[in-house]
Amino acid sequence: MSTPSRTLTLVARPDGVPRDEDFALLANTLPDLNAGQFRVAVRYLSIDPAMRVWMSEQKSYWPPVPLGDVMRAAGIGEIVESQHPKFPLGAWVSGMTGVREQLISDGKGMRRFDASALPHPAWALSVFGATGLTAWFGLTDIGQPKASDTVVISAASGAVGSAAVQIAKNLGCKVIGIAGGPEKCAYVRNELGADAAIDYKNEHVGKALDQHCPGGIDIYFDNVGGEILDAALSRLRMHARVVLCGGISQYNATGKVRGPANYLALISARARMQGFVVLDYLDRADEALAVMAPWAAAGKLSSRIDVLEGLENFAEALRRVYSGANFGKQVVKV
Amino acid sequence: MSTPSRTLTLVARPDGVPRDEDFALLANTLPDLNAGQFRVAVRYLSIDPAMRVWMSEQKSYWPPVPLGDVMRAAGIGEIVESQHPKFPLGAWVSGMTGVREQLISDGKGMRRFDASALPHPAWALSVFGATGLTAWFGLTDIGQPKASDTVVISAASGAVGSAAVQIAKNLGCKVIGIAGGPEKCAYVRNELGADAAIDYKNEHVGKALDQHCPGGIDIYFDNVGGEILDAALSRLRMHARVVLCGGISQYNATGKVRGPANYLALISARARMQGFVVLDYLDRADEALAVMAPWAAAGKLSSRIDVLEGLENFAEALRRVYSGANFGKQVVKV
Repeated sequence: MSTPSRTLTLVARPDGVPRDEDFALLANTLPDLNAGQFRVAVRYLSIDPAMRVWMSEQKSYWPPVPLGDVMRAAGIGEIVESQHPKFPLGAWVSGMTGVREQLISDGKGMRRFDASALPHPAWALSVFGATGLTAWFGLTDIGQPKASDTVVISAASGAVGSAAVQIAKNLGCKVIGIAGGPEKCAYVRNELGADAAIDYKNEHVGKALDQHCPGGIDIYFDNVGGEILDAALSRLRMHARVVLCGGISQYNATGKVRGPANYLALISARARMQGFVVLDYLDRADEALAVMAPWAAAGKLSSRIDVLEGLENFAEALRRVYSGANFGKQVVKV
Repeated sequence: MSTPSRTLTLVARPDGVPRDEDFALLANTLPDLNAGQFRVAVRYLSIDPAMRVWMSEQKSYWPPVPLGDVMRAAGIGEIVESQHPKFPLGAWVSGMTGVREQLISDGKGMRRFDASALPHPAWALSVFGATGLTAWFGLTDIGQPKASDTVVISAASGAVGSAAVQIAKNLGCKVIGIAGGPEKCAYVRNELGADAAIDYKNEHVGKALDQHCPGGIDIYFDNVGGEILDAALSRLRMHARVVLCGGISQYNATGKVRGPANYLALISARARMQGFVVLDYLDRADEALAVMAPWAAAGKLSSRIDVLEGLENFAEALRRVYSGANFGKQVVKV
């Protein structure tokens, strides 16, 4: 009584923005369960900017996804069959499911969560998942914020950025978010509570930073790289911290990555630019959730979910993230 | 009985490498001394890569030298006339003398030192001056070396670099120096004691780093920027530290500075790149000298002095530093 399932495999390394042809949708069948196993029907897949890095051959914190393998992805799903006492039928789990409809697991790397306690199950992939932990540990551990610090966050309406904006505000910082377009900027100001938002598509980011951060920037949380990173670097306050979370503007570069031309400003500002990977903090997740869960319950931490339906639209969901067409945490509904 | 003296003033902001015409040599006269003053005959001027930054209009840790003002420089000299009890005739002093033959001082910012205890008086401008403190605090405070760390140092035969190589070796690190040409590389290996030297003019720096640092780089002490910084960034070991001391390859850029295209390697390596300015550490000089003076006495810390004679050759001395024609600490003998 084997179960049919579909998987999306990586068949070519993208040159620039990923295309549909870089993936292949395959039909396969799952075997019957053994004792100690359970079967998960994947409901939502997390679409993360870093996926572009995983698809390439470049050295990173994870090995490249081998060609022909199922595309790597975090996901959440419901247990639809179980022979595992700790993972009963009907429970929700999150983990690195990969881009597939169903999978069999022995529980390793899978975490149960109470979907009914969340406004949307996909919050387990956003504020209460790796996305939220990325924002929390990047901001607190690398950024080391003090109340009244001026914090600038790029891609502020995105998954990590929107969490970072709210965390920084809840910690008492002055927060300036950078986002693309008036609608996203209104969201950053009005729903996320930033003190100001800069529309990089319609404003001169440097001049706007001068206006909103007259004393300079204490923490710059960078998700984008490129021109915006340069604009922030040249406006650092003494002993500033640049949190390198990502560089989405450079992930699809077909030529050379644009390095930050203003990096020497780190010298005069006695500042540091530091990278981190959320994987290193997974065992400290409870520390973050102990603060963030009460914030969420009090309405001080929200998450906007942007749903695209269908496994076959995975590449399109990725393109939405790289073009900025998404609004909030991009997920694919399976 | 006023004293004739000559000064070199900055008359134009250089475009690219400084030219003789960017400076003007002026004759002036010093007034008679008042009580509490003394007159210094400047003997040696320190030629520092950062001078190019001071000459420009860019924001830095010091304001730009105003056009028409005496060019800023650290120097050492002998007291040739004194009405100050703590600064007697014949004593040597160091301080920000500026590019001039003589000056009158009330002692503020001037420090006496015992030139007879040094192999060359200009050691007070190299290992026992700001140059040595730059190497010490950059390496120890920003780099945080542990014995057995692999430390890579660019411009390793230069003033700061040669001090950094010896300090790192004395602290028990494995040290790879990068310098230009076989003669300088032999000096880095044989006289400074580096485990290996890479000749960036005749070797592929990346491949040579792969060979000498098979496990990656723990500390990269950067004096140069450009391609070499990129080569080091892509070979960082986990939790590496990039000490941003300077970017001599970029100071004379007439176009855009070349930012480090491989800066995203800081993310996968969980590494930091941090700038510093030696001025912040001057009040901790004794802490460094307490370690370095015994090293020097034991022959474990040396300094090579490259002397060019004549105030009128100041611009040429600067050009030597930017082209790498100097070998060791470049000074101008007044």
